[in-house]
Amino acid sequence: MKNIAILGSTGSIGKSALQVVEKYPERFRVVALAACKNHELLLEQIKRFKPEVAALSDPEAARALSGKTVVPVLSGEEGLMKAATYEGASFVVSAIVGFAGLAPTLAAIRAGKDIGLANKEALVTAGDLVMSEAGRYGVKVLPVDSEHSAVFQCLNGNGGDFRGDIILTASGGPFLGKRAEELEGVTAGEAINHPNWRMGRKISVDSATLMNKGLEVIEAHHLFNLPPERIKVLVHPQSIVHSMVEFPDGSIIAQMSVPDMKAPIAYALSWPERLPGVIPRLDLTRFDGLSFSKPDTGAFPCLLYAYRALREGGTMPAVLNAANEAAVGAFLAGEIGFNDIPAIIKETMALHARRDLIEEKSVIEADSGARKSSSELIGKIRDKRRKIF
Amino acid sequence: MKNIAILGSTGSIGKSALQVVEKYPERFRVVALAACKNHELLLEQIKRFKPEVAALSDPEAARALSGKTVVPVLSGEEGLMKAATYEGASFVVSAIVGFAGLAPTLAAIRAGKDIGLANKEALVTAGDLVMSEAGRYGVKVLPVDSEHSAVFQCLNGNGGDFRGDIILTASGGPFLGKRAEELEGVTAGEAINHPNWRMGRKISVDSATLMNKGLEVIEAHHLFNLPPERIKVLVHPQSIVHSMVEFPDGSIIAQMSVPDMKAPIAYALSWPERLPGVIPRLDLTRFDGLSFSKPDTGAFPCLLYAYRALREGGTMPAVLNAANEAAVGAFLAGEIGFNDIPAIIKETMALHARRDLIEEKSVIEADSGARKSSSELIGKIRDKRRKIF
Repeated sequence: MKNIAILGSTGSIGKSALQVVEKYPERFRVVALAACKNHELLLEQIKRFKPEVAALSDPEAARALSGKTVVPVLSGEEGLMKAATYEGASFVVSAIVGFAGLAPTLAAIRAGKDIGLANKEALVTAGDLVMSEAGRYGVKVLPVDSEHSAVFQCLNGNGGDFRGDIILTASGGPFLGKRAEELEGVTAGEAINHPNWRMGRKISVDSATLMNKGLEVIEAHHLFNLPPERIKVLVHPQSIVHSMVEFPDGSIIAQMSVPDMKAPIAYALSWPERLPGVIPRLDLTRFDGLSFSKPDTGAFPCLLYAYRALREGGTMPAVLNAANEAAVGAFLAGEIGFNDIPAIIKETMALHARRDLIEEKSVIEADSGARKSSSELIGKIRDKRRKIF
Repeated sequence: MKNIAILGSTGSIGKSALQVVEKYPERFRVVALAACKNHELLLEQIKRFKPEVAALSDPEAARALSGKTVVPVLSGEEGLMKAATYEGASFVVSAIVGFAGLAPTLAAIRAGKDIGLANKEALVTAGDLVMSEAGRYGVKVLPVDSEHSAVFQCLNGNGGDFRGDIILTASGGPFLGKRAEELEGVTAGEAINHPNWRMGRKISVDSATLMNKGLEVIEAHHLFNLPPERIKVLVHPQSIVHSMVEFPDGSIIAQMSVPDMKAPIAYALSWPERLPGVIPRLDLTRFDGLSFSKPDTGAFPCLLYAYRALREGGTMPAVLNAANEAAVGAFLAGEIGFNDIPAIIKETMALHARRDLIEEKSVIEADSGARKSSSELIGKIRDKRRKIF
């Protein structure tokens, strides 16, 4: 029996993780659930999964919940950290979206928990720190992203001295094949309408800009200890091959399945075992063809900026991420256009003076600084748009 | 340094194996070369690779060679067995085509050599015996067929308690998509014109009839200890995915590369390591799409007969194989038509009274009996055709 804490339980990954737990009650038990502010859904989850503790980082939401359940409800950042380090859990699913996921992930590692990592930003902004702390505390960081889980599966038994390349696949998102000019007027509604995966709004936009793949390149660098030039990206619109490993002899090992996040979640939870019947079988005869192409970094330059940030290292990936979070937020709010997202990221990175990343403080400073720069750039665009309309 | 004996050095696999040896002289040395009768090519190979011993199973060819080299030339069946068990070799590449490969493969196993197995018939006709002898003598049987090598690679680190399915891919051969009626008049020249692989004539015809895949299903049963219903076949005309493993959780691991036999040969020779730069890299963007479909066992019933022989077990797979060898030989000689091949196999199997396979003698008897039956059936067809033309 594995006792699990789920951080971000009301989000897309959190809900899938709970489905996996529910399907294999003899293997997993949920002991802590934490979310941001969706107290209604959290209450339902509490009733169903009977955790020992719950947390909401939004204090008002925590207050709203606490009268309705006998389970102790922790509140605020502090409550989130307590859930992340809850002594009854041996495994933490880190599925909070965005930079907010870094602190509880680090706290869980330092409390000796193995991590199922769905939060990208912890590795993107502070990968060296996270991985060195994981090494120091002897905990495993198991990928929950479908791409990194695929690489992890492909490397099984080969990972030790892996000297090859990895190929991350990208669906290409809803705007695959469009030119930059055609992207000018696209709406948030169009951007979050992903062809293959049902995901949260922020990650759906990241998928449309290819920044999601850029963040994954940075994650992969940390998870698999590979230099940027050995991490490649191919667009694969069918989202069946989730990623690949290319060995030096010329052989490629690929992982495939129907696109369903329960698969990588269950693999992280049960590794090194595999559970039976997690997702439906893949029927390869249903596809006209599995195709692969080079990403169009002219129309989708975010991927290039991610590689650049990774090469520059230090605080730059945190800046890339902060600028992206700010820009995507503004795009979803209808304040800026789709092509403004890469423009803001590029400009914010240009404004930032890279520093080495020695401690958490440097990350937080870089993040804050970048958010400030981005916010000003967003303000300028908004003002300009107001004048036009 | 691995000292290697190559049985069948003048054939397609043997020549590829020598290319691998030549490319990695610091890793491999050829100490014994054996072939059937191509003494001219064997002489060239002797000059280039300087083995300690050579063998030709055809005595006349052996005589022709022996005057031309200082290397001892062994002759006949006995010479072949000596090469297979040569004490200077620790690894034997078993690449003699057909039933003739069984005896030297068993001899090599009993002499404690690890085996790189390219000969299909040893496992098809006497798989239980070969694998139990391998266990008894503590030798490894490493697959050299691209499909089984792919499965072996996909299972790396997962093989121990594998409880899933394997999916062998088939190119479909040159007649993919044709109906049975359209196959009536095809010639040997058309049948051996394989779209993706350059192979010997016999295996090319097997590929055109899908019997090659049937033999591989039987091989896979023995190599991976799986029941027939857990071994599936999908037609994949691009020959890029060489085979797959389907885990119980719904995840598939696939092995891909450009179609080049040097890859599985090198993997068997260097396993568990991988050598750098064995074959060119695979560029997945070059394909319109990788496609998969169910085999058409109406037009290509040999695959069904192989499953049937495997399920019946005992001497039946040896009968299937003998009938196939006889029928393919007659087809290549222009004596029978393409559709006569499955007809002869079906009829020969129906004529055979299945027996348990306890010792080599039962295999040899079943093989001889089936060849006799097939030969009579071929004779009848030939006579009928003579009357017509």
